[in-house]
Amino acid sequence: MADILILTTGGTIDKLYFDALSEYQIGDSVVARLLAVARSAADVRVVELMRKDSLELTDADRALIADVVRAAPEERIVITHGTDTMTQTAAALKDIPGKRIALLGALAPARFAESDAAFNLGMAFATVQVAPAPGMWIAMNGTVFPADRVRKDRERNSFVAV
Amino acid sequence: MADILILTTGGTIDKLYFDALSEYQIGDSVVARLLAVARSAADVRVVELMRKDSLELTDADRALIADVVRAAPEERIVITHGTDTMTQTAAALKDIPGKRIALLGALAPARFAESDAAFNLGMAFATVQVAPAPGMWIAMNGTVFPADRVRKDRERNSFVAV
Amino acid sequence: MADILILTTGGTIDKLYFDALSEYQIGDSVVARLLAVARSAADVRVVELMRKDSLELTDADRALIADVVRAAPEERIVITHGTDTMTQTAAALKDIPGKRIALLGALAPARFAESDAAFNLGMAFATVQVAPAPGMWIAMNGTVFPADRVRKDRERNSFVAV
Amino acid sequence: MADILILTTGGTIDKLYFDALSEYQIGDSVVARLLAVARSAADVRVVELMRKDSLELTDADRALIADVVRAAPEERIVITHGTDTMTQTAAALKDIPGKRIALLGALAPARFAESDAAFNLGMAFATVQVAPAPGMWIAMNGTVFPADRVRKDRERNSFVAV
Repeated sequence: MADILILTTGGTIDKLYFDALSEYQIGDSVVARLLAVARSAADVRVVELMRKDSLELTDADRALIADVVRAAPEERIVITHGTDTMTQTAAALKDIPGKRIALLGALAPARFAESDAAFNLGMAFATVQVAPAPGMWIAMNGTVFPADRVRKDRERNSFVAV
Repeated sequence: MADILILTTGGTIDKLYFDALSEYQIGDSVVARLLAVARSAADVRVVELMRKDSLELTDADRALIADVVRAAPEERIVITHGTDTMTQTAAALKDIPGKRIALLGALAPARFAESDAAFNLGMAFATVQVAPAPGMWIAMNGTVFPADRVRKDRERNSFVAV
Repeated sequence: MADILILTTGGTIDKLYFDALSEYQIGDSVVARLLAVARSAADVRVVELMRKDSLELTDADRALIADVVRAAPEERIVITHGTDTMTQTAAALKDIPGKRIALLGALAPARFAESDAAFNLGMAFATVQVAPAPGMWIAMNGTVFPADRVRKDRERNSFVAV
Repeated sequence: MADILILTTGGTIDKLYFDALSEYQIGDSVVARLLAVARSAADVRVVELMRKDSLELTDADRALIADVVRAAPEERIVITHGTDTMTQTAAALKDIPGKRIALLGALAPARFAESDAAFNLGMAFATVQVAPAPGMWIAMNGTVFPADRVRKDRERNSFVAV
């Protein structure tokens, strides 16, 4: 059992750009690379669960994420996720007991020179280590929000407390 | 009063490279730029307190840092610091009551394409937001350490629990 | 009159990513920023002519590019362009006398941490400075091709000599 | 025989930063990585000849560089070099017949997020491909200088024509 389980589900954070198609697609998860650049020595297990835009996630996808979280031996769980439906996935996980869960995504792909991915992953890592009791949080825009008191403001392209 | 006070003291995280001198020097703090890239909407106050390699910090410097922390209206305080004497500065701050303090640095300058600075700053930001009570932590190498139970292993160039 | 005229027409090199729309769009030209990072002291004039995917360029667009090139007081001209129809635009410019012209694009947006944009722009800059006589070249994939002896191999996503 | 021989000799372009020592050192050459990011398909041979600050290069070092250039089967030669004595090395190579040689360096390490290394390497690559006859050039600051008509202005930290 690792100290922290990292589940990747896709989203902007993992987006690549394919010139041949003139489009982006979700690629290999960048999590391992971000942890290497961060010189992380934390004991982690990484599971690439799916590669989807969060607008494409179905109820079945969310049920699968919940099943994997529930079954995990780790108590501390970090989930990378598209930003558009992150709060919906959080709602689907809210009755799972005994877990410290932090969800994060990125507003610019991690492969960009200027991305919020590394900072957000750092926030999520600290959240599951420092939280005094089980709970769920969303780490975006410099802020650790309780997962049931935040929404994405698409106009401003930013997460705000509710 | 801001939600979070950020004190910068220098260290590798802020190092520039001057070709004309063929040497590194500590430049303007990169904190504001890291927060912009992170698209942080957190309410912060940034104070550039000093620009020193942490091996050059004196007792008087540490007393000044402690005075600024003690006098700050903010309860949540993030300090960027050179890595070599980060634990000494933490020791100098340990009797200050009522503060959630997170120290961080970087093992590679933030201006490098591959630096741990953004991730570590993210960890420190989350730590002071999530900590349930006053205390002091060091956020390095993917880990949030209690500040009195960590040391830098210079051989391995990594922070380890003690 | 500057030494080098830079015309920007759009293409992958200038692509931004908008999370709010989950799509890429062509943004402000990155040329000025690339030249600043390159610490270029060359005497240039930059004209942002259009912002189009090269698949969307019309005959009228190409006629406009040709008109601007023909009318330019500068003899040395660098053109940033989408990669898919770069050779078509070159064909539309081939009868303009007295100009050293280098076209370039990028297979990954310049805003990515890993992009061929800076290298290609460097090749184009050198080409118009070093060419012994008027002519036209395409600078891509580490190679300066005569503009009428190259094609983009979309399968391999690479320019190859023909 | 490759189309282009790349000789690396050290200098700022290859500088690493070692936090454990609080100093930089010259590391593995970044040339291979820069060419990969540039998606270069050029046929090259890379020889890591030495790893020195250019202020430390001796007459014997320059004689060695000249010997390697003279003996090379390739006619097109790119040399990465520290900036401070680049013109001296060029002077030591000036009597070698039959070669198109471009020297380049960087004013900021290639490992920085913002470095002139990729652009300068692109200029050097194009120079040896486009030059109509043997000769020697220095590719720095957005400009391809004839190697005997340029100097580094250390005050302005920039190469200027003489």
